[in-house]
Amino acid sequence: MSGLMRLDDTWALDHFNAEEIDGGMREAALQLQLLVDRKGAGSEYSGWLTLPIDAPDSLLARIEDVAAGFREQSDTVVVCGIGGSYLGARAGLEFLAGVPSHSATNGLPDILFAGNSLSSWQLRKLLDRLAGHRFSVVVISKSGTTLETAVAFHILKTELVRRFGTEKARTRIVAITDSEHGTLHDLARDEGLVTFDLPRDVGGRYSVLTPVGLLPFAIAGLNIRAMLQGAAEQRTDSLGSPAATNDALHYAVARRLLNTSGKNIELLTSFEPCLHFVGEWWKQLFGESEGKNGKGIFPASAEFTTDLHSLGQYVQEGTRSLFETVVDVPAPADVAFLCDEDSPDGLAYLNGRSLSAMNHDARIGTLLAHHDGGVPVLQLTVPDVSERSFGAAVYFFEVACAVGGYMLGINPFDQPGVEAYKHNMFALLAKPGTEVEAADIRSRLARGN
Amino acid sequence: MSGLMRLDDTWALDHFNAEEIDGGMREAALQLQLLVDRKGAGSEYSGWLTLPIDAPDSLLARIEDVAAGFREQSDTVVVCGIGGSYLGARAGLEFLAGVPSHSATNGLPDILFAGNSLSSWQLRKLLDRLAGHRFSVVVISKSGTTLETAVAFHILKTELVRRFGTEKARTRIVAITDSEHGTLHDLARDEGLVTFDLPRDVGGRYSVLTPVGLLPFAIAGLNIRAMLQGAAEQRTDSLGSPAATNDALHYAVARRLLNTSGKNIELLTSFEPCLHFVGEWWKQLFGESEGKNGKGIFPASAEFTTDLHSLGQYVQEGTRSLFETVVDVPAPADVAFLCDEDSPDGLAYLNGRSLSAMNHDARIGTLLAHHDGGVPVLQLTVPDVSERSFGAAVYFFEVACAVGGYMLGINPFDQPGVEAYKHNMFALLAKPGTEVEAADIRSRLARGN
Repeated sequence: MSGLMRLDDTWALDHFNAEEIDGGMREAALQLQLLVDRKGAGSEYSGWLTLPIDAPDSLLARIEDVAAGFREQSDTVVVCGIGGSYLGARAGLEFLAGVPSHSATNGLPDILFAGNSLSSWQLRKLLDRLAGHRFSVVVISKSGTTLETAVAFHILKTELVRRFGTEKARTRIVAITDSEHGTLHDLARDEGLVTFDLPRDVGGRYSVLTPVGLLPFAIAGLNIRAMLQGAAEQRTDSLGSPAATNDALHYAVARRLLNTSGKNIELLTSFEPCLHFVGEWWKQLFGESEGKNGKGIFPASAEFTTDLHSLGQYVQEGTRSLFETVVDVPAPADVAFLCDEDSPDGLAYLNGRSLSAMNHDARIGTLLAHHDGGVPVLQLTVPDVSERSFGAAVYFFEVACAVGGYMLGINPFDQPGVEAYKHNMFALLAKPGTEVEAADIRSRLARGN
Repeated sequence: MSGLMRLDDTWALDHFNAEEIDGGMREAALQLQLLVDRKGAGSEYSGWLTLPIDAPDSLLARIEDVAAGFREQSDTVVVCGIGGSYLGARAGLEFLAGVPSHSATNGLPDILFAGNSLSSWQLRKLLDRLAGHRFSVVVISKSGTTLETAVAFHILKTELVRRFGTEKARTRIVAITDSEHGTLHDLARDEGLVTFDLPRDVGGRYSVLTPVGLLPFAIAGLNIRAMLQGAAEQRTDSLGSPAATNDALHYAVARRLLNTSGKNIELLTSFEPCLHFVGEWWKQLFGESEGKNGKGIFPASAEFTTDLHSLGQYVQEGTRSLFETVVDVPAPADVAFLCDEDSPDGLAYLNGRSLSAMNHDARIGTLLAHHDGGVPVLQLTVPDVSERSFGAAVYFFEVACAVGGYMLGINPFDQPGVEAYKHNMFALLAKPGTEVEAADIRSRLARGN
């Protein structure tokens, strides 16, 4: 029982029975074996399974070394990437903003993100923000041809050259890309940039424990070894525990049963805003893994109690098509509440409580209310805000997602549908070689069908 | 045709036919009449209908006057509220951050938000952020008993007193609350605070064009008269246009038909991040209005192209239970893309384009791709990033939501389900008078059902 993540399905139990859980767990154990044996669909992308134990010390030392250099020369670092080359790093940085290594005011650079949209307004603000700052860039792209990232990187690189000159600009860029091929690989080789390899057997959304996440984390002063250690502990638990005590499998099975019983939306909720981007990362992981062949649970997220005052009414009494997974983590800092006996706001009964205690009671009260409204609620517990717990949470969700995908009968490691919009977009942008598609699209737009 | 918002259903037309639209529009016109005549369910809360034309000049002048005073004495203003007392102001401020009146660096105060969660970490960071700053507080609560807002306001008020003394602290607080009753009303009266009334015939989620939104907007230097003017123009269009050319009714009808045909998720998307909190506001408006009696479309939102690399796969190929409403608005600033003919990143074909042009092609490409994947796509156009357009968008969505609620057979102005979690939470917090419920809840928690 060395794993760190815990699932409690108490408040979902009236939506499935013990027999269904047992049957599901047996099935999940078979699928887990297929995953571990690398015999399932998409097994060429199962390299993430061993990331927590495979990373050589030399790689970690080099990441830490490059990070230290970036910290030295920069007050701001821009991480340029999209999807799996964006969300994992951002999730970890925002979740861990409260840990001592990161929150200490010891001159750590600000970390900003770019290359994850085509919004000119967002990029304009970023460029304004960089004016006068000693900035550096981490660019992350397997191919180098993803438009959002390539365009932003081109503009940022031009700005680096303008500000620091061609030679010095090169020392302010690290590229994380394919080890042998691709536009970004070739550019980095020709210009002599520092690079890290994107492992070929790890897909984007499973890549946060590669340099894709680890380098930004190290730049932010976070302990990447503790993070991998947490993931390794979770690995031991999630791959090694018998089905009856395997919480990752249990999560996969509970989701599957709830989906089978007609729930087609999973609302991932939390009571701490630091989990916001963990929710965004989770949405990519599950949505992109499951959402194919007309299948999959729609992944949504909400922040409570904030969104109890927006989505709360719907969750309580709307269409009964959703279940809720609440992620609980203790806040990294507390605030005491002090109130005079005769305070005119009537809050004297809360005197001496902490905000965390109130938030706890709000969470339990919500759990019961939503359960009573007919919403199955799963509870996931992350033990604390720490690098170790973040690593564990990542691994836990990845295993549950992969096993759940196999149970659903899909390949949880591909994403063929992401190409569709790019295909049209490149044609509209008149990328060389797309002339035929472009003519077809323009005629469709004129016709309207 | 003086209205500003436009709906285009071209790429949803294979999911309903002209006859259904016509029938729906006739029904919607009847429901609109019921709304305007204030004869429908919840009509005691239809005061928002006339807000754009009712606001006396004296009220607007007082808002502008108080705002000017706050700007004078503050470098930071904290707006303390939750739900409808939070999302509208935040939506407007983030959407309009790019307009000249707001983005000018002329010493406008930073506007921060509090009282919208019970996260101790969030409040701790806010308090740290306020240290050394000349801050003021706008507190918004109808009753003054909403826990999240009351607790944060108590702490912020204590801090104001500590920093500026009791007398001066009072000049740094404005309360927006009920005109006659309630804890916050009484406190404000007894302490001689400046107050603005929350109109009794306007519910929280419909309140952004009352002082709830207008005061924060005015503090931020925005033109609130232009905003009301835009809402008034949209009002003329949405209440006065015949059904055949009434885009607000058309939006309500299209949503209804898509819901009837089995779509239970609406994904509101945009290609500009400045619309992010408009999406959050929209989720409350529609989710809280429709989500009752086991009915309603689940409201979700996404930012493209960012989320095309996370939710995109699901939208393209997952369970066919969603439709998409894409909100288009031109970016308030553009970035030119310049690229040498021999650039190693292969982007020479984009030389001379602007980012906005690329984003446009991404949007059209996505529209076609999702349509081809079986997702009905509605297009809403906001003409520009301006106060006038924000006011118009607010009014457009409010009319569509109210009419759609009547078509669904629910009261779009109440939110009975929001009480359920509060009820449990107050019992767990041992609020005086909840002893019986508290005992019951504790015994349920011990039993687990």
